[in-house]
Amino acid sequence: MLIGAIEAGGTKFKCAVATSSGVILQDTTIKTTTVEETMEKVLKFFSSFPIKTLGIGCFGPICLDQTDERYGMILDTPKKIWANYNILKTLKDALKCPVKITTDVNASAFGEYYYGYKKKYQNLIYVTIGTGIGGGIVYNGNLLQGHHHPEIGHMILKRDKDDKYESTCPFHSDCFEGLASGISLDKRYNLSYEELSLREDLLRREANYIAQGIYNLYLTFAPDKIIIGGGVSHQEKLLPFIREEFRKLNNNYYTYKAVKSIEELIVSPVLKDNSALYGAIALGVMEK
Amino acid sequence: MLIGAIEAGGTKFKCAVATSSGVILQDTTIKTTTVEETMEKVLKFFSSFPIKTLGIGCFGPICLDQTDERYGMILDTPKKIWANYNILKTLKDALKCPVKITTDVNASAFGEYYYGYKKKYQNLIYVTIGTGIGGGIVYNGNLLQGHHHPEIGHMILKRDKDDKYESTCPFHSDCFEGLASGISLDKRYNLSYEELSLREDLLRREANYIAQGIYNLYLTFAPDKIIIGGGVSHQEKLLPFIREEFRKLNNNYYTYKAVKSIEELIVSPVLKDNSALYGAIALGVMEK
Repeated sequence: MLIGAIEAGGTKFKCAVATSSGVILQDTTIKTTTVEETMEKVLKFFSSFPIKTLGIGCFGPICLDQTDERYGMILDTPKKIWANYNILKTLKDALKCPVKITTDVNASAFGEYYYGYKKKYQNLIYVTIGTGIGGGIVYNGNLLQGHHHPEIGHMILKRDKDDKYESTCPFHSDCFEGLASGISLDKRYNLSYEELSLREDLLRREANYIAQGIYNLYLTFAPDKIIIGGGVSHQEKLLPFIREEFRKLNNNYYTYKAVKSIEELIVSPVLKDNSALYGAIALGVMEK
Repeated sequence: MLIGAIEAGGTKFKCAVATSSGVILQDTTIKTTTVEETMEKVLKFFSSFPIKTLGIGCFGPICLDQTDERYGMILDTPKKIWANYNILKTLKDALKCPVKITTDVNASAFGEYYYGYKKKYQNLIYVTIGTGIGGGIVYNGNLLQGHHHPEIGHMILKRDKDDKYESTCPFHSDCFEGLASGISLDKRYNLSYEELSLREDLLRREANYIAQGIYNLYLTFAPDKIIIGGGVSHQEKLLPFIREEFRKLNNNYYTYKAVKSIEELIVSPVLKDNSALYGAIALGVMEK
């Protein structure tokens, strides 16, 4: 039985056909351009395979409220030409199979759970620090979903007193994404990736913002794992700094038996940059 | 069939016997003193009734991890004589019936859900702004519980730039509880309840801290209701100020269809000061 999977991102669509045990048999990467051009290539790829179900992890925000007629629609996104496009409906109509959609970061969280931690842990949080900041939460083995997917990238944080740069979020002067996303780093500091890697002061500030964001989630969920993904997380010094800042913030206040150390709690993705694609496969498997 | 319920607080224990439909037949209030004296009175009250199950909402932190041998134990609490006391075990052994325990604020959240909103809504958050600050989260009709109950009172917040008072939290210089709890208001401003009610500047700051705390939860859970309880919430001007500050923070960023207005989202408890007692009854009912 074949499962289709799409990681639909703002710059590229990764498409794959996999077995239900998660072995990828064929995959392709399609550049994200116009809706028509991109979707035509996506449908062409899948047309060669008799897939039984399809899972999608898509850039957001997306309407995931099944009682809303916009269910499966990409909402107001900075990629204007994709706004108000119902990607779920198109794929369902064309492929004539069950399709399950969630956000890319939810898919990453679910991929890490399903193909990484499922046998040992049921509660984990995946935070992506990329162009934007988002989070997916696996709670008791399922993706947490209220009336909307989590929007943790806009949590209000405590600004570093020496941080005089403006937030890059058009809505919030001091939110996680406005202070710490990839775009924020680029616009605020105007340094290359390599230049930034030499600026320990700025990396520590970045680590502190990330630590604040995940600390608030840690206090709320008491999870097994907090996984830090996304392009910014490739800065090698960042993960150790995040752990240090987290330790300082917690200041020995709050631990629980299930988590033995901050090193065990805060980790990199097991599936590297493929968490979302594997998550989409897992969603497809669950739909079968 | 009779259900027993206890709201175990740091200053008093409210005990009740109710029918399974939630009608309280008999109740009493016992002052919280030593463990022995308090528990003797509690057991004496229940000894006259053939209760089938007991629900408890207890001041925390409590070990709620059922795989931990300390399950049901009050952990390291400022009320030192109650620390490391397993209140669940005592009640189970003495009353010889199923006993369900959770925190007082979890009980409040569950009471508001079970006897207030159950028929319409499945996702709500109860935040208590009392001596301390805590939160209980009902997600899909159940209390959210990772490896520990939520500890949202210690989320890191953005401090008001004019707030030069020290945090009263021994662990965090800028956490929700350290900046905005009843103790924090008392120690930091040294004003009576009446004096504070005249200080619109301080009430607005308080409202902003509360708005930040609940905004972070709103972004994460997209709930139907956020209920503000606890002694500090009795300040009449506070709720309108919280809504105003919440609106300013959100700055038109994020809404979802299920919630029509901030007035509908952020509300006072339906069960007034009895949310936790009714929640304890509901827990008892669920155990039967």
